Amino acid sequence: QGILERLDAGEIVIGDGGFVFALEKRGYVKAGPWTPEATVEHPEAVRQLHREFLRAGSNVLQTFTFYASEDKLENRGNYVAEKISCQKVNEAACDIAREVANEGDALVAGGVSQTPSYLSCKDKAVVKAAFRKQLDVFLKKNVDFLIAEYFEHVEEAVWAVEVLKESGKPVAATMCIGPEGDMHGVTPGQCAVQLVKAGASIIGVNCHFDPDTCLETVKLMKEGLQGAKLKAHLMSQPLAFHTPDCGKQGFIDLPEFPFGLEPRIVTRWDIQKYARKAYDLGIRYIGGCCGFEPYHIRAIAEELAHERGFLPEASEKHGSWGDSLSMHTKPWVRARARKEYWENLKPASGRPYSPSMSKPDGWGVTKGARELMQQKEATSEQQLKELFQKQK
Amino acid sequence: QGILERLDAGEIVIGDGGFVFALEKRGYVKAGPWTPEATVEHPEAVRQLHREFLRAGSNVLQTFTFYASEDKLENRGNYVAEKISCQKVNEAACDIAREVANEGDALVAGGVSQTPSYLSCKDKAVVKAAFRKQLDVFLKKNVDFLIAEYFEHVEEAVWAVEVLKESGKPVAATMCIGPEGDMHGVTPGQCAVQLVKAGASIIGVNCHFDPDTCLETVKLMKEGLQGAKLKAHLMSQPLAFHTPDCGKQGFIDLPEFPFGLEPRIVTRWDIQKYARKAYDLGIRYIGGCCGFEPYHIRAIAEELAHERGFLPEASEKHGSWGDSLSMHTKPWVRARARKEYWENLKPASGRPYSPSMSKPDGWGVTKGARELMQQKEATSEQQLKELFQKQK
Amino acid sequence: QGILERLDAGEIVIGDGGFVFALEKRGYVKAGPWTPEATVEHPEAVRQLHREFLRAGSNVLQTFTFYASEDKLENRGNYVAEKISCQKVNEAACDIAREVANEGDALVAGGVSQTPSYLSCKDKAVVKAAFRKQLDVFLKKNVDFLIAEYFEHVEEAVWAVEVLKESGKPVAATMCIGPEGDMHGVTPGQCAVQLVKAGASIIGVNCHFDPDTCLETVKLMKEGLQGAKLKAHLMSQPLAFHTPDCGKQGFIDLPEFPFGLEPRIVTRWDIQKYARKAYDLGIRYIGGCCGFEPYHIRAIAEELAHERGFLPEASEKHGSWGDSLSMHTKPWVRARARKEYWENLKPASGRPYSPSMSKPDGWGVTKGARELMQQKEATSEQQLKELFQKQK
Amino acid sequence: QGILERLDAGEIVIGDGGFVFALEKRGYVKAGPWTPEATVEHPEAVRQLHREFLRAGSNVLQTFTFYASEDKLENRGNYVAEKISCQKVNEAACDIAREVANEGDALVAGGVSQTPSYLSCKDKAVVKAAFRKQLDVFLKKNVDFLIAEYFEHVEEAVWAVEVLKESGKPVAATMCIGPEGDMHGVTPGQCAVQLVKAGASIIGVNCHFDPDTCLETVKLMKEGLQGAKLKAHLMSQPLAFHTPDCGKQGFIDLPEFPFGLEPRIVTRWDIQKYARKAYDLGIRYIGGCCGFEPYHIRAIAEELAHERGFLPEASEKHGSWGDSLSMHTKPWVRARARKEYWENLKPASGRPYSPSMSKPDGWGVTKGARELMQQKEATSEQQLKELFQKQK
Repeated sequence: QGILERLDAGEIVIGDGGFVFALEKRGYVKAGPWTPEATVEHPEAVRQLHREFLRAGSNVLQTFTFYASEDKLENRGNYVAEKISCQKVNEAACDIAREVANEGDALVAGGVSQTPSYLSCKDKAVVKAAFRKQLDVFLKKNVDFLIAEYFEHVEEAVWAVEVLKESGKPVAATMCIGPEGDMHGVTPGQCAVQLVKAGASIIGVNCHFDPDTCLETVKLMKEGLQGAKLKAHLMSQPLAFHTPDCGKQGFIDLPEFPFGLEPRIVTRWDIQKYARKAYDLGIRYIGGCCGFEPYHIRAIAEELAHERGFLPEASEKHGSWGDSLSMHTKPWVRARARKEYWENLKPASGRPYSPSMSKPDGWGVTKGARELMQQKEATSEQQLKELFQKQK
Repeated sequence: QGILERLDAGEIVIGDGGFVFALEKRGYVKAGPWTPEATVEHPEAVRQLHREFLRAGSNVLQTFTFYASEDKLENRGNYVAEKISCQKVNEAACDIAREVANEGDALVAGGVSQTPSYLSCKDKAVVKAAFRKQLDVFLKKNVDFLIAEYFEHVEEAVWAVEVLKESGKPVAATMCIGPEGDMHGVTPGQCAVQLVKAGASIIGVNCHFDPDTCLETVKLMKEGLQGAKLKAHLMSQPLAFHTPDCGKQGFIDLPEFPFGLEPRIVTRWDIQKYARKAYDLGIRYIGGCCGFEPYHIRAIAEELAHERGFLPEASEKHGSWGDSLSMHTKPWVRARARKEYWENLKPASGRPYSPSMSKPDGWGVTKGARELMQQKEATSEQQLKELFQKQK
Repeated sequence: QGILERLDAGEIVIGDGGFVFALEKRGYVKAGPWTPEATVEHPEAVRQLHREFLRAGSNVLQTFTFYASEDKLENRGNYVAEKISCQKVNEAACDIAREVANEGDALVAGGVSQTPSYLSCKDKAVVKAAFRKQLDVFLKKNVDFLIAEYFEHVEEAVWAVEVLKESGKPVAATMCIGPEGDMHGVTPGQCAVQLVKAGASIIGVNCHFDPDTCLETVKLMKEGLQGAKLKAHLMSQPLAFHTPDCGKQGFIDLPEFPFGLEPRIVTRWDIQKYARKAYDLGIRYIGGCCGFEPYHIRAIAEELAHERGFLPEASEKHGSWGDSLSMHTKPWVRARARKEYWENLKPASGRPYSPSMSKPDGWGVTKGARELMQQKEATSEQQLKELFQKQK
Repeated sequence: QGILERLDAGEIVIGDGGFVFALEKRGYVKAGPWTPEATVEHPEAVRQLHREFLRAGSNVLQTFTFYASEDKLENRGNYVAEKISCQKVNEAACDIAREVANEGDALVAGGVSQTPSYLSCKDKAVVKAAFRKQLDVFLKKNVDFLIAEYFEHVEEAVWAVEVLKESGKPVAATMCIGPEGDMHGVTPGQCAVQLVKAGASIIGVNCHFDPDTCLETVKLMKEGLQGAKLKAHLMSQPLAFHTPDCGKQGFIDLPEFPFGLEPRIVTRWDIQKYARKAYDLGIRYIGGCCGFEPYHIRAIAEELAHERGFLPEASEKHGSWGDSLSMHTKPWVRARARKEYWENLKPASGRPYSPSMSKPDGWGVTKGARELMQQKEATSEQQLKELFQKQK
């Protein structure tokens, strides 16, 4: 059954987790460029991660094609040991995802994300051509449906949806925005309306913000659709990092990004709370993005096991709410084998010299400077630096 | 070259990271029992993790035989879907480790750890028989050397070393103790002396405490050996969790163990500091235990790249001290591409409702109760519970 | 010159700090009832505190008549050692304030605050009679102007202003509300409009929230007046506690209220930032409430010394931005004798087992329960407790 | 009855709190010099603070003569508006303390503290002459006993005790050291022995460290005396700041000293725990130093009310363990009217951007530099700065 049949029937669809962060920690992706050449260089590593998500309960395996548009790969090409063509990266991603999907009951989704071409003011035709190039591969490899994800600008997201819709396959679209809306100030509600009008059947958010913030944004999207009397399925794939201190542009501006985010990693219990809230909000495509490891995805599947009627395979190796501790030799560890314990734990950081929140960088930059950057004007590096330092 | 040749020549040997925690998050190990039946059930997952550590710079691949003594596996057998024999688990572990070691330049070490037999007061012969059973497999599979690790009682560790020494292979021995010593109050210095006298060529600590605490303990061991005019190589494989608030029995007593430890996870920069301090202390076998992911091992290799003369393979996908951020589009993210930045960052937890330290559980238990448990006497569950609650 | 002449001329008027909290710590006021019988029992203690505020820069000495309405004093009468009449408390308060005001250049303001009569649904005439009884004393003692402060309900605040206006003296009115408005949901902007229409010449907020939150509320009041094309002087007298985690009803709901608020106390540097922001927002009557000690008031006067052209007397004993440390024997303490140091300090709590924020109590209470209480209906204690515990 | 009669009879003697910090916040003492010229300039402020401590339960009023030796006053003379002679400051301090002591049942203690003469290597005769000058005033004014307090070097403390003993009055001696001992490395046990041998009848610590650390130090002193078979009464007057992160030289090295210590202020409940622990340790002279306000002293008296048989006067305005909240209108505030609540509260700081602990300054200074300073050698400012910065 396809994605829309499942969602239309009221099923809960569980997404997968974040590949670039997980594979960075495993040694296959470079932070900074974040490009997915590992599909060609180390297919076994990508395959294993897909398998872990499948086992954890994912119903959708996304091709590992994040930032795999030709312009991005070229732009970051110097990081790739041997030049690997955009087409090869995308094809390998499709093959690996399909191979693992066939080991279970999962769909394969081909994904596109925001392009450097858009940010550097290339025109609509150029940007659309970049998406079409990836789409050609997805069609050749016959993915099950398509996702336009990680867009900061609704204009570009709409272009992506328009291209993907040419295929006739179902299209999901998620933006990496928070409750304040996109980088030009379009509200989440308006973004949702534009995406649905462009042809997306599933809309929502991914990345950039923590689970609570993402749910707040999806709620605003839902209200926007209701106001416009439009219908779409809702989707949420947040970070697995606590980011209550984010600004409008999300976790990239936090001083800990990307190499000091560890103390912000959410627990499995945080994810169970997220899954429940997402479900209660009417979201039925529930997954994760950067920071989500297989055990986080499993936590979604376990929280919603009653509604879905089954547990994922990986729950063989996991007791509900810590009950695998009930045989521990120490009585005080056995005392942790219960829901109330983990639900109420406020976990310590072990870092008494660290604060609990940070001021996002870029905050001190003049509104003018931020706008210059957001509006993609021809601002020289030097100009920006001066503005930046003047405001520090 | 064997492990002793390398260490005798002054080489730095990099260990690997923690399998039970990493594979628990990937869905293949159950927290609580922590047994390694995945070597038979999901060899591809174990193989992939070995490969990642190899790629990250590990010179030693430890067979995934933690808690794989027959008594332990039986004790926890109800967790294993199909009964898998102790021998099969150990053999598969050896085969997988060797297969991956052959892909690079790594040694294979067979490992034994503390047994339920010892804790339930079985006599020396019974305990030694359990070690010998694993050793038989290690010899059949011809591992390169042997490690007795994760012992809370030096008495049992000595017995393990004695058994392992029967093989004629080099033996390393590490205890999971802190500066206060073993569970019977034997100091780290005395433990070190006993282990070396029993035949260990390499001694140190693993697990239970954070890097700083482990280094403090190894320092005490070193001083113990100096006092006794004994020589041995030093080894350190700590947690990748900050645990300044631990009591004598380590992180198991922390309220966050094992499902809420995320905010304590150390960064790669914390590990670089650890590697440098370990090196300066004279430790030449430097690795990790629970919580160590491949990128933590890579951080050891990168910190000591100058001393070793080369970088690990996985550094292809990593810039030194964040320099892969130097091309980021945002100037304030580019500003993070330098050592001083990451060295001085005090990363926020994003958890304003959490404290930075916890009181270990079991702290309130009467000294009497703790001793009962430590002395392995026939204390009924009910007795302990009453003592425990009376003291809460 | 009167209060309005000063404000109309563009002068900055500095208020005083919080008497009930300061005198509670000195041993003269009981937390819980918070009544001001100390004016009769220990005039020397009240006099000394007035003197300290005067010396710190206060231009207004408020009579210590908080909660000194007859209904309140009777209600809490059991706390007062010997029955002291409402009139005596109010008269003594006026005498003491005037005596100290005459030692310098300060005005005396008579103050009334919310009454138990209003909360227990007495009608308008009863409530107004209570205010009038205090007003009679203020007129007999000829205070310079009048303040209606600490009102959670704008309806009652308006009644108070109406009574005070009968005197012909200038009237200031401040509510203890946050940006969410009064307890019946009247917005700060609407509150401001109603107060000005009732005759208040100066409006703003006091108590219940930290400086930043209070400024946010006054900003909303200012915008409300602008929208209604009304004019009034603005006034702000916040807590000297950090309360970013407050709910709608302010710091009373925080678990630390009132005996564990110490870690929240603001520094003198926090107050300098507050004074600057208040000034920039157009507020010209700048003071403090609970938690404000004389050195906090001095910090307002020092921050605005340039605008006002002089320093307060107590600055004899204070160096600007820590410059009195410039002769310290330790070089690293001398290094603290500069503005940048104190401006940027993020002071540690020395409490690693405490979080940085709390969940307000009463949060878990059903909306129904809160409304019952707010609407002052005849809810039995038992009913409330059950609702409360069910929601915990 | 004199101090020794009381202590010999087993009575608990309650000291007073810290004058320089309390009067700094009230506007009468300048941080940095910390000199007590307020006794002449503003006797009413000093008198009022004595009165508050008396009312809170203090059995001893210390003359406000901290840093009132002639060399110190001259050294800091530029801070004093009009030159006031050392003798006048000391005489006024005695008169005010006696006046207030006569209002109740308190003793007056004349106090001397460490001198700049000692730190600048003046010889024994010069230093002793400075103490003798103050002693002359104390004898003329007939104080009840004498305290040598706030000494970092036991050598100077011994000299002070020797001078004070010439008077024939009882002498108490407290050092501002922690468990690591005095600035030359003399252990607390050895310090205690030297002070008792020099003639002190009461010994202990004051200032520089938090209550827990001070009790640890007094415990070491007690053990030192026991080892030497000497007897003395024990005394403890700690900071009212949490300082678990202090180094050897105490809170002055903390980055928050002295203008950002607010989040470290201890609660009344912390003090009740301190009073109980001090009592259990055998300490019978229990008071406070910097940061102690009257309500902290009252907390000592309330905690030990059962042992002493009475409450202090100021408890009229204080309910035991929050019971004055039992009539609050909100049920969740009423729920705080019990001991368990306040005993277990971990109070939040309201400062999510602040850490819970700080690294003391001066920590990075080479051991050499610290020693230079401690050994009072002729180190130039420039030399120190270079050493300091090199180590930062």
